[in-house]
Amino acid sequence: MTPELYPTRAGRRPRVVVVGAGFAGLQAARQLARVDCDVVLVDRRNHHLFQPLLYQVATAALSPADIAVPIRAIVRDQANVQVLLGEVTGVDVVRRVVNVGYDELRYDWLVLAAGATHTYFGNDRWAPRAPGLKTIEDAIDIRRRVLLAFEEAELEDDEEVRRAKLTFVVIGGGPTGVEMAGALREIAAETIADDFRRVDTTTARIILLEGGDRLLASMSEAAGERARRDLEAMGVEVRLETFVTDIDEARVWVGEHSVPAANVIWAAGVKASPVGEGLDVPLDGQGRVLVESDCSVPGHPHVFAVGDLAAQVDATTGESVPGVAQGAIQMGRFVGRIIRDEITAGEEGIRPSFRYIDRGDMATIGRARAVADIGGRTFHGAFAWVLWSVIHVAFLIGFRNKVLVMVNWAWQWFVQTRGARLITGSPSVHVEEPADLSRDPGY
Amino acid sequence: MTPELYPTRAGRRPRVVVVGAGFAGLQAARQLARVDCDVVLVDRRNHHLFQPLLYQVATAALSPADIAVPIRAIVRDQANVQVLLGEVTGVDVVRRVVNVGYDELRYDWLVLAAGATHTYFGNDRWAPRAPGLKTIEDAIDIRRRVLLAFEEAELEDDEEVRRAKLTFVVIGGGPTGVEMAGALREIAAETIADDFRRVDTTTARIILLEGGDRLLASMSEAAGERARRDLEAMGVEVRLETFVTDIDEARVWVGEHSVPAANVIWAAGVKASPVGEGLDVPLDGQGRVLVESDCSVPGHPHVFAVGDLAAQVDATTGESVPGVAQGAIQMGRFVGRIIRDEITAGEEGIRPSFRYIDRGDMATIGRARAVADIGGRTFHGAFAWVLWSVIHVAFLIGFRNKVLVMVNWAWQWFVQTRGARLITGSPSVHVEEPADLSRDPGY
Repeated sequence: MTPELYPTRAGRRPRVVVVGAGFAGLQAARQLARVDCDVVLVDRRNHHLFQPLLYQVATAALSPADIAVPIRAIVRDQANVQVLLGEVTGVDVVRRVVNVGYDELRYDWLVLAAGATHTYFGNDRWAPRAPGLKTIEDAIDIRRRVLLAFEEAELEDDEEVRRAKLTFVVIGGGPTGVEMAGALREIAAETIADDFRRVDTTTARIILLEGGDRLLASMSEAAGERARRDLEAMGVEVRLETFVTDIDEARVWVGEHSVPAANVIWAAGVKASPVGEGLDVPLDGQGRVLVESDCSVPGHPHVFAVGDLAAQVDATTGESVPGVAQGAIQMGRFVGRIIRDEITAGEEGIRPSFRYIDRGDMATIGRARAVADIGGRTFHGAFAWVLWSVIHVAFLIGFRNKVLVMVNWAWQWFVQTRGARLITGSPSVHVEEPADLSRDPGY
Repeated sequence: MTPELYPTRAGRRPRVVVVGAGFAGLQAARQLARVDCDVVLVDRRNHHLFQPLLYQVATAALSPADIAVPIRAIVRDQANVQVLLGEVTGVDVVRRVVNVGYDELRYDWLVLAAGATHTYFGNDRWAPRAPGLKTIEDAIDIRRRVLLAFEEAELEDDEEVRRAKLTFVVIGGGPTGVEMAGALREIAAETIADDFRRVDTTTARIILLEGGDRLLASMSEAAGERARRDLEAMGVEVRLETFVTDIDEARVWVGEHSVPAANVIWAAGVKASPVGEGLDVPLDGQGRVLVESDCSVPGHPHVFAVGDLAAQVDATTGESVPGVAQGAIQMGRFVGRIIRDEITAGEEGIRPSFRYIDRGDMATIGRARAVADIGGRTFHGAFAWVLWSVIHVAFLIGFRNKVLVMVNWAWQWFVQTRGARLITGSPSVHVEEPADLSRDPGY
């Protein structure tokens, strides 16, 4: 045993601290199951979130608990893992401690898998108007806003204000933006079309704005083009090469032009967790740690950054590893195995370089519409959608969740409804021009 | 047509305003489906809530959307119903208008079914410490508090503080209190027993306080006694004839005695919605309208109060109609039919008197334990529990909800877990005495 490996006390079991119980962190912890070490899994939330389906909570298709599982339940049977609910506020790589609230947590190995959040590119004042979608709370907030918009439109007498209430601008044409835009159109045109008496929800405008020249930049060109055509066929207005310059109380601005829209959803910028900033190492433009080929933080071989917190390239192709679940899972597993091997061997070995295996990528667009890139081919339509459904259900953690999600989806498929249309939190409607409720017909 | 019936404009369809889309309001609206009238259903929430299962959301067994259905979806096919999301702030029985926010809503018939909320008997300062359970938000808040209590206990080094974190006081021995106490004990002793590494959650104290001399006062004496014995066998401490005199930051006080408890749940007092206060008619001690035998408000034959807002007695027995779902359903249906008949006839008829049909009552206590009073007999144990499950699932609105709830319950039955253990909202733990995270073993 080298002092480098077991620095604090002779004979003590090494401790691996994993920050973040997302895809990457869970995988790293799992690799250490049969290793003689203590694993501390720190997360500020008590649940692991299956983020690829988060937009389905935001669009009232699934319940939060369908896609979120208590971290303690996931690692219950791995006796050497302890779960710590707390927020990491800093890392001291010299003293080898992580700050969790007021406390210090000593580590021998550290895996930083704290993920990413959305960013407004310096325009934080847009945040209240254009919520992003990263947490369960974000999803519930967006669901509330979307459902309330229709309620408010129903009460609105002023035609212009009503139009604005029925206008949804989704900013960002990645998977989240595409999936949100498709789902919003489906809600307006199908799910709730018969629910309102005064307002025709099928006239709702869904506008998808993307700065680049295509949708789904992380996928193939064919997939992006197909997604655009499918969305347009559904009635979504897709605008490429369009940069939002401002969002004010009433409108979304693109240079001189603007559209009155009460509802804006931010699916554009992503920024890594600030935990990387405290490491005093170079970060990329998104705040990600420019990690070594073994995913370690430069100069600190016992500290790894993985998942959305890491800017990593594939060792063979030199291409950036995309910020998707697969990348996080693979990186987490990769560093978990390095730590496992070195603890087992009792010394540092020659470490492998990370290689990303692209198992395909997919995005859903609507009822029986999806696009998928698999093995160099692009699929679309109902086949891609079934594939998307099967794969997403298969990767959900927990048998119960798989069953519930399938029941929900089957029900939606047959009845064309969405079961979780709850407005919770602040339930009040805000009507700028009160409707004349006493006139006939109407209220 | 009498001017009394169609007062505002000749030839206009009569308008029935129903305030509240709970059990009573929905039933009233439903009776008017084939009647030539406009029904406006006003609720401040967009969803109907199946309140008998609300404690299951508070105890992480079900998701909010499992027991809540959008009102618009429920009445979608009843073309003469319009749903209005808004808060009723007053009723003017002279001008026959209901105030909804800034607006006035004219009515020809009015059904007040605004329900009840919890009351602290003048001790509103207890509210932040002892949340009640009436809305989805209440349930999510209690779920968050309960789950966080175990997390905080896990981090706590001070033995006394940890005991307090693991002490749950449920105040009120009615169905909600009994069901909460049983479920909390089950969570601590079974659901999460293997989830924590430092704290032994099976040592958690669940204390159920009831002012009267028995539990489940609305049910038979045998049921109340059985519930007490079953709860005690599970490890719940039941204290009868015990009135809480104060709740401070750390303790629950009963006269000179007190118990340190971080978690308090209020299941004691119920008070009718304040909408009755504006009517200028006599109310009972709980703020309920002392209605006529036809459920109308004294002096206003076109205004009805039903459900938890009404103090009604059975016309035959003279006994009070209990504040349960059955009573609300029966009253709502009763007044809906009166209105239906009078609109159809074009004139007021001789109205029947309300008779309450007691179809039985039941409360669940734990896994395969319940008590049920049916047809003068009391059942308990697994049989009562199956009965309870079947009846509660049968009365859930929406086929999807029935399936989801059954899947959840089946899953819980086999795996002894609870699927909705999510801490949402403010996720931070509050630890009074920070744990020494750097010591071994532990964190």
